[in-house]
Amino acid sequence: MTMRSDTTAPLVTRHDAAHVATLTLQSPGNLNALSTAMMTALHATLDTIAKDPTVRVVILRGAGRAFCAGHDLRELLTLRDGPDTGAAGLKALFDRCTALMTRIQSLPQPVIAQVHGLATAAGCQLVATCDMAVAGDAARFGVNGVNIGLFCATPMVALTRNMPAKLAFELLTTGRFLTAAEARDGGLVNRVVPDGDLDAATRTLADTIATKLPAAVRIGKQAFHAQIGLPTAAAYALTGDVMVANMARDDTTEGIDAFLAKRAPDWPG
Amino acid sequence: MTMRSDTTAPLVTRHDAAHVATLTLQSPGNLNALSTAMMTALHATLDTIAKDPTVRVVILRGAGRAFCAGHDLRELLTLRDGPDTGAAGLKALFDRCTALMTRIQSLPQPVIAQVHGLATAAGCQLVATCDMAVAGDAARFGVNGVNIGLFCATPMVALTRNMPAKLAFELLTTGRFLTAAEARDGGLVNRVVPDGDLDAATRTLADTIATKLPAAVRIGKQAFHAQIGLPTAAAYALTGDVMVANMARDDTTEGIDAFLAKRAPDWPG
Amino acid sequence: MTMRSDTTAPLVTRHDAAHVATLTLQSPGNLNALSTAMMTALHATLDTIAKDPTVRVVILRGAGRAFCAGHDLRELLTLRDGPDTGAAGLKALFDRCTALMTRIQSLPQPVIAQVHGLATAAGCQLVATCDMAVAGDAARFGVNGVNIGLFCATPMVALTRNMPAKLAFELLTTGRFLTAAEARDGGLVNRVVPDGDLDAATRTLADTIATKLPAAVRIGKQAFHAQIGLPTAAAYALTGDVMVANMARDDTTEGIDAFLAKRAPDWPG
Repeated sequence: MTMRSDTTAPLVTRHDAAHVATLTLQSPGNLNALSTAMMTALHATLDTIAKDPTVRVVILRGAGRAFCAGHDLRELLTLRDGPDTGAAGLKALFDRCTALMTRIQSLPQPVIAQVHGLATAAGCQLVATCDMAVAGDAARFGVNGVNIGLFCATPMVALTRNMPAKLAFELLTTGRFLTAAEARDGGLVNRVVPDGDLDAATRTLADTIATKLPAAVRIGKQAFHAQIGLPTAAAYALTGDVMVANMARDDTTEGIDAFLAKRAPDWPG
Repeated sequence: MTMRSDTTAPLVTRHDAAHVATLTLQSPGNLNALSTAMMTALHATLDTIAKDPTVRVVILRGAGRAFCAGHDLRELLTLRDGPDTGAAGLKALFDRCTALMTRIQSLPQPVIAQVHGLATAAGCQLVATCDMAVAGDAARFGVNGVNIGLFCATPMVALTRNMPAKLAFELLTTGRFLTAAEARDGGLVNRVVPDGDLDAATRTLADTIATKLPAAVRIGKQAFHAQIGLPTAAAYALTGDVMVANMARDDTTEGIDAFLAKRAPDWPG
Repeated sequence: MTMRSDTTAPLVTRHDAAHVATLTLQSPGNLNALSTAMMTALHATLDTIAKDPTVRVVILRGAGRAFCAGHDLRELLTLRDGPDTGAAGLKALFDRCTALMTRIQSLPQPVIAQVHGLATAAGCQLVATCDMAVAGDAARFGVNGVNIGLFCATPMVALTRNMPAKLAFELLTTGRFLTAAEARDGGLVNRVVPDGDLDAATRTLADTIATKLPAAVRIGKQAFHAQIGLPTAAAYALTGDVMVANMARDDTTEGIDAFLAKRAPDWPG
């Protein structure tokens, strides 16, 4: 279903350096489409990373000229040929996609989208779903399924939780693309850098987080997603307990001790 | 209760062209106040449009020098003279207003506010409630009921769901007006154009959406409002089903087929 | 637990002028840390103000070179020495903090944070929690607990309800500080003025609100926080009743009468 000629090559590659795992979608021929095979490969890689204490931050990028152009349209059409207009197969595909998005947010480590070229449809959803995003200045963002008659309903979930409602509605119904600067102003992206600086800038952001106490970052990411949709009182109840649990750690008291003594903390490597 | 001398003229006029229905509030003498009569007329017009498959997008504008200046204060005072400080009549009026706002969001077609001059109080709520908004550069936006001792409580509901909390609080308690550019930066408006270009720019936005597959836009608008307040998991469950239903349409598969074949889709007129 | 030598001086001072109460955190030696004593003092002051009909607006500021630098780290460490890694004492401290934040939002009068210097961790939470904020242009904002191994979990609750998700995540996991202008663009602050104009600009904002009908502002603030987390339909039901109750007041009808007659309202002093 992809245009890749070498079907034995991995769809997702991983490169670790200094506690940062960089994952690269390796299907440039179809702009790193989120085929079932690609989603399964990425999900499996994330499952492995979730259990790897050496990884503190994840960078997600795409090989070739685009970050990710969304679902594999050829696969959608093939599934659609199934019984009942493909309902069961298509539902399984979108469930798989939602499970992947949920896995990114449930991953203990922060995930940074490194976006160049195009991020469209479910590829734009991937950007919205990652905890942070850095974009090259030539990147473009769209939820343009409406142009082919398939409204980007699932990408909308992530999009409307990361930008103002009227801007999201416009993108979804017009298919208009955002420039990188517009994506930043709208809240979809943390920062925009020249394309030539994209690797380095994303790496710098990842490295900054990798220097923090890993347990604090993990505690924080989990609490971030747990509290964001709750009523305020419930969010405070949850996060108050998180603060107490964070304080119970010996490395936290070492961090505070060191700060008050104006020395570097002696944290576990 | 209005200042219009010709009480037989319609309060809302409709002009259709190329699948876009333009509705004009026709009570310039009181800045298109949302009297019960005006709200009833607009609601009825929307009910008719909801059932009209030829309409793909709605533009809402005001005649005269303002978009809409909110409730009809003379009507509020008259109702207030009723028993129990007018509680029953006033409640009916605000319920009528909420029903109108709800009707705009439940309308199958996207609604674009075309804003010139003033959009204040419930008139500003109308802008916030429409799916999108285009403003002339001299337009001003306010929820200034506090200036006359009547806090804009119901407009606040739409406002706080379309701009940052602290900005909304400021506007509500100070009565300060936003410029068109400030409204855009705050998320209340999609774009600002010179007043002289307002008709054309709004029309261009509407026409863009009118060229899309109407069923996809309708499916999308309904899903947009259905998912926006839900917990993320529930929003994904809902929109996953929406994607499957969208794919079940023959015109969607034609759209995807055409895209992959690099030809124009053969969609129903 | 503070560095203040004069332990009998009040931790919070109050100065009233023209219906505006200005509260100043008076612990510059530890950058106005939110020790239990400080939180208790501020909470008690707010309780008194809640019952004071002469106060229409509250300004909250800090003495010395910072607005507020968050919790008192020495107190956290002392509590942590208690049984069960201090769980009971720490939980009581964070509950106390949440009660203070809740008190600010339940206060009948609007509260404006006047921010100079640093606003970090729970001090940044204080800014996010206040109804509005004015910042001097040299002010800096951070939720930088992660730098010492203590993730700002409770500040996150207020933060994520006042800025885009990805920006909040970045600040929480990197410890990066926002400039005043960035805080304004992100929605955390209403306006930024030169440091030398900070007193006057905050006062002008407070005075503007103090000229409004106090009952309308109180009704409005209460409704603002009551509706903001509700589903839209429930928010409209609540605020519709608020409008009716607001209209039942004689001073509201006087306000509308005066507006229609183009004269100044004769409101209670």
